[in-house]
Amino acid sequence: MSDAPSPGAEALRNLYADWSAVMAGRPDLDIRLLRSLFDEWHQATAEPTDVTYADDVVGGVPGIWALPVGADLGRVVLFTHGGGFAVGSAASHRKLAGHLAKALGTTAFVLDYRRAPEHPHPAQVDDGVAAFDGLLERGIAAADVVTAGDSAGGNLAIAIPLALRERGRPLPGAVVAFSPWLDMANTGKTLESNADTDALVTVPLLAGMIAGVLGDTGDGPAVHPATPLANPLHADLTGFPPVFVDAGGAEVLLDDAVRFTERARLAGVDATLSVVDGLQHVFPFAAGRGGEADAEIAAIAEWYRSRRAGVAA
Amino acid sequence: MSDAPSPGAEALRNLYADWSAVMAGRPDLDIRLLRSLFDEWHQATAEPTDVTYADDVVGGVPGIWALPVGADLGRVVLFTHGGGFAVGSAASHRKLAGHLAKALGTTAFVLDYRRAPEHPHPAQVDDGVAAFDGLLERGIAAADVVTAGDSAGGNLAIAIPLALRERGRPLPGAVVAFSPWLDMANTGKTLESNADTDALVTVPLLAGMIAGVLGDTGDGPAVHPATPLANPLHADLTGFPPVFVDAGGAEVLLDDAVRFTERARLAGVDATLSVVDGLQHVFPFAAGRGGEADAEIAAIAEWYRSRRAGVAA
Repeated sequence: MSDAPSPGAEALRNLYADWSAVMAGRPDLDIRLLRSLFDEWHQATAEPTDVTYADDVVGGVPGIWALPVGADLGRVVLFTHGGGFAVGSAASHRKLAGHLAKALGTTAFVLDYRRAPEHPHPAQVDDGVAAFDGLLERGIAAADVVTAGDSAGGNLAIAIPLALRERGRPLPGAVVAFSPWLDMANTGKTLESNADTDALVTVPLLAGMIAGVLGDTGDGPAVHPATPLANPLHADLTGFPPVFVDAGGAEVLLDDAVRFTERARLAGVDATLSVVDGLQHVFPFAAGRGGEADAEIAAIAEWYRSRRAGVAA
Repeated sequence: MSDAPSPGAEALRNLYADWSAVMAGRPDLDIRLLRSLFDEWHQATAEPTDVTYADDVVGGVPGIWALPVGADLGRVVLFTHGGGFAVGSAASHRKLAGHLAKALGTTAFVLDYRRAPEHPHPAQVDDGVAAFDGLLERGIAAADVVTAGDSAGGNLAIAIPLALRERGRPLPGAVVAFSPWLDMANTGKTLESNADTDALVTVPLLAGMIAGVLGDTGDGPAVHPATPLANPLHADLTGFPPVFVDAGGAEVLLDDAVRFTERARLAGVDATLSVVDGLQHVFPFAAGRGGEADAEIAAIAEWYRSRRAGVAA
């Protein structure tokens, strides 16, 4: 696709550029105000019509249900938000999850998992697994859960099934990762090659988030950066569920999506990769405002239907 | 009511105390980050169940529809958010407006009016009137509109009917003002007497907001602080619609609510005042989480039904 980005995609880029300017102008901005700033993420997304919401606690983890009118209440997108494991919230991702659930014909539960640095790895994965367990306790079948998330939440959407498999537990039926951030060692090729086009993510920003989520002993990280549940690029992906991964062509984390998909396919996983040229980190955030985001979510819905049909066949 | 505040009311107070601490620790916090901070207001409110949302532009003014399932689509709460005319947004007040609309059996349109200081008075009133006109162009009867708002938005909920009356136009059927901030001259008695109990609002904070909304010529405000459409305590209230005003007993702006109600009654207006002891500024923000907020919104719904019945009789 070589068309110019839509106005919605441009608005997302402008939001990122504004955050970058705020952060550059205030290098002392603390986690308190970074959380406030990144909660503006929702501004990129239109309110999805015909979706209601409810606060809840599932498996001990608070969050927000997105309940599209007429959705199959027996199917759930377990949505883990992005924000470097440290910022972002169920509130910032409510609308994005609502668009996704509506397209898939499911509900979504958007987790407010415990955030770093107060809660380092594996608190986020543990909360995801606890919420998954909570859904099963409510009578949802594992195969009727889709783990989904963006950026660090895309990492979690992948790590939750890996943690379940480690424990010999049934897996979700499908996984969706928007611009997943996977590599806790900062080795991706696009970190450098897309540094001039990514409006938000930088190596120093990632380094700060890595220190937060892996913990810091004063003599290096408390959790090794190649720990498979923290860095799924190092995981054995055998038996992983069908997975849809996307990324923007302009973002520094593109290589995480590419490498994960390659590794998944080598492990025999049904892995789909969608890269849209010229777009930013988590471009589906422009849902309802940007044609690329809406087309992507429609493509994911089509993919989900085909995988479900495959299971049913 | 002398019971201890509910956990929801305490959570609102804690949010205010946290904002106050953030502002005290960073006297250089600019309007960009103040807007980010105050958009956390929504955190005090539970998601109202069975309400859908839609972005829209009404009369040229952007905003968010809150559409309770089964609501009378011919009745609209035109909701103007608080935040000193400078901060707050449709997003920060979406859930509060959803709770109110659901209780009243109406829809709500929450305005993103132009904010100060970029847009001083009367931009906010003009946007409110334009949105009111837009509703009428869509076939809504003036009497089926309720103007409602909190704090500075409570001021606007009162100023919009006053501006309409000045122009000889039909008025909304009812007005609801949560903790309205009316006095642009900072003369209320509770500014001092409640200074120790209000967790958020202070005279210096109000002075900054006043400078923003009234404009600054360098030699005093561009708009006189007693201008009736900026300061409805100075307005002729004859013929004003039935109005419900509330305030928390612990807040510095309590006296604005008291003085407005007194003046309205002297002018023959059907004015109801509800003051709940011990509570903070815009205590209905705890809707869905605090018994006092839910009781207040239920009381407003009962009041609205009785006033509508009166009109029909």
